[in-house]
Amino acid sequence: MQDIEPIIKDYLLAWNASDSKKRADLMAKVVAEDCLYADSHLPEPIITRELHYQFIDRFRQKFPDLSLVLASSLDSHHNFFRFAWKLVKPDGIPFSQGSFFGKVNQQGEISKLVGFVDK
Amino acid sequence: MQDIEPIIKDYLLAWNASDSKKRADLMAKVVAEDCLYADSHLPEPIITRELHYQFIDRFRQKFPDLSLVLASSLDSHHNFFRFAWKLVKPDGIPFSQGSFFGKVNQQGEISKLVGFVDK
Repeated sequence: MQDIEPIIKDYLLAWNASDSKKRADLMAKVVAEDCLYADSHLPEPIITRELHYQFIDRFRQKFPDLSLVLASSLDSHHNFFRFAWKLVKPDGIPFSQGSFFGKVNQQGEISKLVGFVDK
Repeated sequence: MQDIEPIIKDYLLAWNASDSKKRADLMAKVVAEDCLYADSHLPEPIITRELHYQFIDRFRQKFPDLSLVLASSLDSHHNFFRFAWKLVKPDGIPFSQGSFFGKVNQQGEISKLVGFVDK
């Protein structure tokens, strides 16, 4: 079983990076090229790392002050994982929160990531 | 998008049936033959409906008085779903609780189901 914690930490850093190049580098490290990403805001799941990167990059441009942070411990078995997340404003007040569920592959890359929003 | 609620209700009925034939019939209806099932108690994920059925059947024989019930609303998008569950004793006291995350296929069958235990 992969050590999932550093993978998720790099993924959150990719969301929070203000520098697009840094985001792309982090995602190349921890997101599979054919990773499936889905959340309830998307019309269709995203099925490539490039589109996933563009999605986060657009989010970052639109909400430069929000940070995506862990809001629970990281729970995992058989290369599946779950964690609660919060999008927080600079003053720490949550803008939104929910959970991510996913899978990592044998190369230590996130291969599936499905998000749900609690509020 | 499939209406996921009746699928999950039948799946919970399959867990709770005291009659193995009824369990098998319900699972034939709402679980794909190649459904992946994983939880933290299993050494390896289960990857067939038949083994999934045998797993629940053994559980039912071991814990005939526990019922698996929904402990949240059913949240879904893009044929992915999540819900919180409780295993309760006949007096309603929870024995264990956690969450399931999964996917249904185009035939309205559960094709992936991954469980996590909260306590």
